[in-house]
Amino acid sequence: MIPYEIDFDSLSKKIKKLGFQDILIQLPEGMQIYAEEIADNLEDFNVFISANPCYGACDIEVYPNILTIQFGHSKIPNIEYPENIIFVEAFSKASFNTALNSFLKIADCQNVGILASVQHIKAINDVRAFLEEHNIRVFVGKGDSRITYPGQVLGCNFSAAREIKNNVDCFILLGTGEFHAWGAKIVGGKDVFVLDPYTGRAKKVNGGSFLRRRYAAIAKAKDAQKFGIIVSSKIGQKRWKLAKNLKKIVEKEGRKAYLIMTDNVVPENFYYSVDAYVNTACPRLTYDDYSRFKKVVLSPIELLIALGIKDWSAFSFDEIVEVDK
Amino acid sequence: MIPYEIDFDSLSKKIKKLGFQDILIQLPEGMQIYAEEIADNLEDFNVFISANPCYGACDIEVYPNILTIQFGHSKIPNIEYPENIIFVEAFSKASFNTALNSFLKIADCQNVGILASVQHIKAINDVRAFLEEHNIRVFVGKGDSRITYPGQVLGCNFSAAREIKNNVDCFILLGTGEFHAWGAKIVGGKDVFVLDPYTGRAKKVNGGSFLRRRYAAIAKAKDAQKFGIIVSSKIGQKRWKLAKNLKKIVEKEGRKAYLIMTDNVVPENFYYSVDAYVNTACPRLTYDDYSRFKKVVLSPIELLIALGIKDWSAFSFDEIVEVDK
Repeated sequence: MIPYEIDFDSLSKKIKKLGFQDILIQLPEGMQIYAEEIADNLEDFNVFISANPCYGACDIEVYPNILTIQFGHSKIPNIEYPENIIFVEAFSKASFNTALNSFLKIADCQNVGILASVQHIKAINDVRAFLEEHNIRVFVGKGDSRITYPGQVLGCNFSAAREIKNNVDCFILLGTGEFHAWGAKIVGGKDVFVLDPYTGRAKKVNGGSFLRRRYAAIAKAKDAQKFGIIVSSKIGQKRWKLAKNLKKIVEKEGRKAYLIMTDNVVPENFYYSVDAYVNTACPRLTYDDYSRFKKVVLSPIELLIALGIKDWSAFSFDEIVEVDK
Repeated sequence: MIPYEIDFDSLSKKIKKLGFQDILIQLPEGMQIYAEEIADNLEDFNVFISANPCYGACDIEVYPNILTIQFGHSKIPNIEYPENIIFVEAFSKASFNTALNSFLKIADCQNVGILASVQHIKAINDVRAFLEEHNIRVFVGKGDSRITYPGQVLGCNFSAAREIKNNVDCFILLGTGEFHAWGAKIVGGKDVFVLDPYTGRAKKVNGGSFLRRRYAAIAKAKDAQKFGIIVSSKIGQKRWKLAKNLKKIVEKEGRKAYLIMTDNVVPENFYYSVDAYVNTACPRLTYDDYSRFKKVVLSPIELLIALGIKDWSAFSFDEIVEVDK
């Protein structure tokens, strides 16, 4: 059984209305185990299941005469998508009540900002009601043009946190894992508590270890002579102008730079003879996958700090605000 | 130093004539270590190095306003490529004389067919001269519309062998590894000797073990109820019509089939709940990468044999003759 709210009847009607017979299904990793079941629910069509990894609405596959249906992500408003793709969000029904009680025990915030990854976005209303019953003021940021829902965060965009950071004492993040929380912590500058609906726990993230790792990476790259600048071919991660610009900056400093383009970044394949990489693709690669690269990996701003063009105080979390057209 | 004949001056002139400033370099795995050196030779342009794997001229990456330059492969004549791609072959200078002497010692063929992978295609003339000096008759097949040079074999096309199989006692294959030789052996039905210029050795391939593995795979899949049909999105491996047709055949037999599409087939990601896969992408996946899949992998003809629609005697090596437009 698929543990998400997906209305296959309306979806089938929509596909028919759009006039497609062939459809391609893109699923994030956690939903891939339901691929056959989803295909069984769409038997009126020729279903192609994509076996390529799918990391978000920044990462689409489209082919002529096929309708691509990406599940589990919301459309990124400021990307100019081709016409033959639609997005089907998959909202979780998980409750946050247990985690909220845990949060009340460990935190002392009178003004709370709520953030959520897309599958938990519908829970924001319940969470707001719960907190307001406990006399806590709640703030939900709208986010920039890359964000669909108020309060939503992407791994590469924390504008919904930035907007309200001066109003809140802390943030709560509805979801699992620490990655989004690091971003919120760096961008918002306030305590961040991850509320995990599956374990029912609230956990304060520690941004210190994250920052120490980044400072260490920058220090290591200071003397690098050859840089590999990683560029993505994915529609929602295309920052080629930025990459070309960084190459010029590196060369102006008398060092060398190579632009390395790829679809899925497989760190194990990066055996280029460079001293350090600079990543303009998904920021998560820099912060989460760095240990799988044989060389140090910097974000764009970290490159400028390593080159001495910017000061350490300029450090910020790499976010994708807009992409090349 | 790049150990291939590449004329960078003419290449630069060609790129300028075509009017591109941004270029993308695609390299086969063996040439990836020269990526930075190749980029250094093309400093007049904005060079993007592709870090995606590149398996042949069937496997191209193209982006608007960028010229893709694929090194190491010859254009496949019957593919309708976009305009912004060019191919730069990289011919090896290796000599086959030592391997030819080894061949004369172990083989007794009066009529020899010569086959070569593209990087050794220029050596065919020297090899022909050597053999004719030893009073051996030499045959070189032209190949079908997927083949650029007489005598050339691809991992998915042995038409240059098929054409001359009735004229020869045996084939020699200029190259390394056994994969192309298996194909030549199954398609041509004659002994095949691999002449490796780097070791200087000639080696007769044993097709028996290859066939036994295939028969075992077919036997295992006989009772499969759910098939995953692998479909490639690569321009030169697109056999979607074939795949859809196979799905219908499977369903007519009262079993289930799912179409699974991907760019690079990463067997480790194929954790679908099917009993067997059928591969319509690069045939090499079926024959070389089968052990990395958790389930048995069949070629299209092997599926028909497993379903009892064709007899064991229908077995043939899976070749790609043409692809969907």
